[in-house]
Amino acid sequence: MKHIIVPATSANMGSGFDSIGIAFQKYNHLWFIEIEEGLEILINRKQKLKIPTDKNNLIYKTMVGFYELIGKQMPGVRLIQEDYIPLTRGLGSSAACIVAGLMAANDISGCNYSKEELAQIAAKIEGHPDNSNPALLGGMVVGALDKEEMRHVKLKMPENLSFAVMVPDFPVETEKSRGVLPYTVTRKDAIFNSSRAALLVASMITGNIDNLKMAMDDRLHQQYRLPLIPGMADIFKMADVFGSKGSYLSGAGPTLVSVLTDDTVSGFSEKMNGYLSTIPHKWTLEVLKPDLEGARIISE
Amino acid sequence: MKHIIVPATSANMGSGFDSIGIAFQKYNHLWFIEIEEGLEILINRKQKLKIPTDKNNLIYKTMVGFYELIGKQMPGVRLIQEDYIPLTRGLGSSAACIVAGLMAANDISGCNYSKEELAQIAAKIEGHPDNSNPALLGGMVVGALDKEEMRHVKLKMPENLSFAVMVPDFPVETEKSRGVLPYTVTRKDAIFNSSRAALLVASMITGNIDNLKMAMDDRLHQQYRLPLIPGMADIFKMADVFGSKGSYLSGAGPTLVSVLTDDTVSGFSEKMNGYLSTIPHKWTLEVLKPDLEGARIISE
Repeated sequence: MKHIIVPATSANMGSGFDSIGIAFQKYNHLWFIEIEEGLEILINRKQKLKIPTDKNNLIYKTMVGFYELIGKQMPGVRLIQEDYIPLTRGLGSSAACIVAGLMAANDISGCNYSKEELAQIAAKIEGHPDNSNPALLGGMVVGALDKEEMRHVKLKMPENLSFAVMVPDFPVETEKSRGVLPYTVTRKDAIFNSSRAALLVASMITGNIDNLKMAMDDRLHQQYRLPLIPGMADIFKMADVFGSKGSYLSGAGPTLVSVLTDDTVSGFSEKMNGYLSTIPHKWTLEVLKPDLEGARIISE
Repeated sequence: MKHIIVPATSANMGSGFDSIGIAFQKYNHLWFIEIEEGLEILINRKQKLKIPTDKNNLIYKTMVGFYELIGKQMPGVRLIQEDYIPLTRGLGSSAACIVAGLMAANDISGCNYSKEELAQIAAKIEGHPDNSNPALLGGMVVGALDKEEMRHVKLKMPENLSFAVMVPDFPVETEKSRGVLPYTVTRKDAIFNSSRAALLVASMITGNIDNLKMAMDDRLHQQYRLPLIPGMADIFKMADVFGSKGSYLSGAGPTLVSVLTDDTVSGFSEKMNGYLSTIPHKWTLEVLKPDLEGARIISE
């Protein structure tokens, strides 16, 4: 069987709502092989939420969609799925399944679409590219979407950055987290975000890390999602105190991410773990480096 | 007398409303010298709109403001002003006067503030930094502002870019052009702009010129200003046809700018001049290269 890994991804990064995302060195695994007919799915590592092993499995559904797109008959497949990206936590588990499905179908079908081409398809399936782009391409990716196409640029980042990823024991459904957002915002808030999204990209590329706190500030989604994520405001405040270069809500939440320079990781982790142990809910802190390659077949 | 030049600037660049701007090789000139007392202003080159030569002169007012800020007595000054940036056309003539005033006062007072420090002051005076930053620093600059401070990054740009600057014979008052903007916008439009502003910065820095058309697209201001600028929509369309890499409304208008690669300048100019001669109002097309240094004292 062939073996694919797909990185966890963290979308929005504050001001880059629905457009900027980053991949982390934490992976879902998929082994796949074409079989004569039908579908066999084995889940190697069970999370609390049950992953479907029938035609409702997201990886399988994506493969079916891919075959419809290319106008070919979907063959039988055997899939073994081993997930380490937590579900419904805002770390791109859906995008990882979609990307895994596209990579597997691309390989089995012999289509050999480039990653660029797969990124276009993934963005159309997801409706926004901020998880699928970094899941496929790795690194930090900025993307914009219109009806016809998705344009994106993968950014160079300072090498000394680490990301403190803080995951609580409660889920937030993406749908619910989107539902709390208002239909309109003030023009002032819109300008607030567009200026900061631009500053975020410029600061990352040029290594102006001290700009990140202002550059990741947001008024389009985080403030509305605060009530869904108990502890968020205070954790952000404490992250500042403990030396973070800036913090944001990952995707639709509830995971929170603080940007650190490598030399501050151990001090931050110790203090933040101490703090997290004093507040309601169980929060797990994991420090991750960016994944710079994106989804890949690691063995044939 | 000392001699300062300050470049024309073009703000917004489509999606980068109130945050992204660029400086062009077209300059206002200021000669200045301290005198015993009073104020003497000579205007070397008269535009149609009359420039005040008393205490209402914007350069002088800025110098007075600077001296108030540093808590010193403003000395007498003689100023000779020679302007080539057209007034009320969206090419940063106000910002150029403010920057000239700050540079002159900084020199006379012996304060020797850095350009970075002057950029902070200028942004506070203007309320947004997208003209004052490039006027001071040159090049393409992204900036964001909060109550306490302005953060900015000067971007590297592809060297083969030229800018077709199309100036009509009618003015648009900034106040009027701001007045037509709605207080609220849809969240969708806000995301449209923030994703494109981020893409604009990323594409400029990495030289992905083919992204610019999408990246400079905007939904926060240009569509509302269309009625104030007869011809705008059609000129944008024709610019596309004639090989522009993307077009935008400069500042609050009415000047329009099309981004060109150097090898397409002459073809574009010929065709666009032909087209402009067929439509109402007199439009003047000038092709400018970016100014990369910003305001500077060129002779003592």
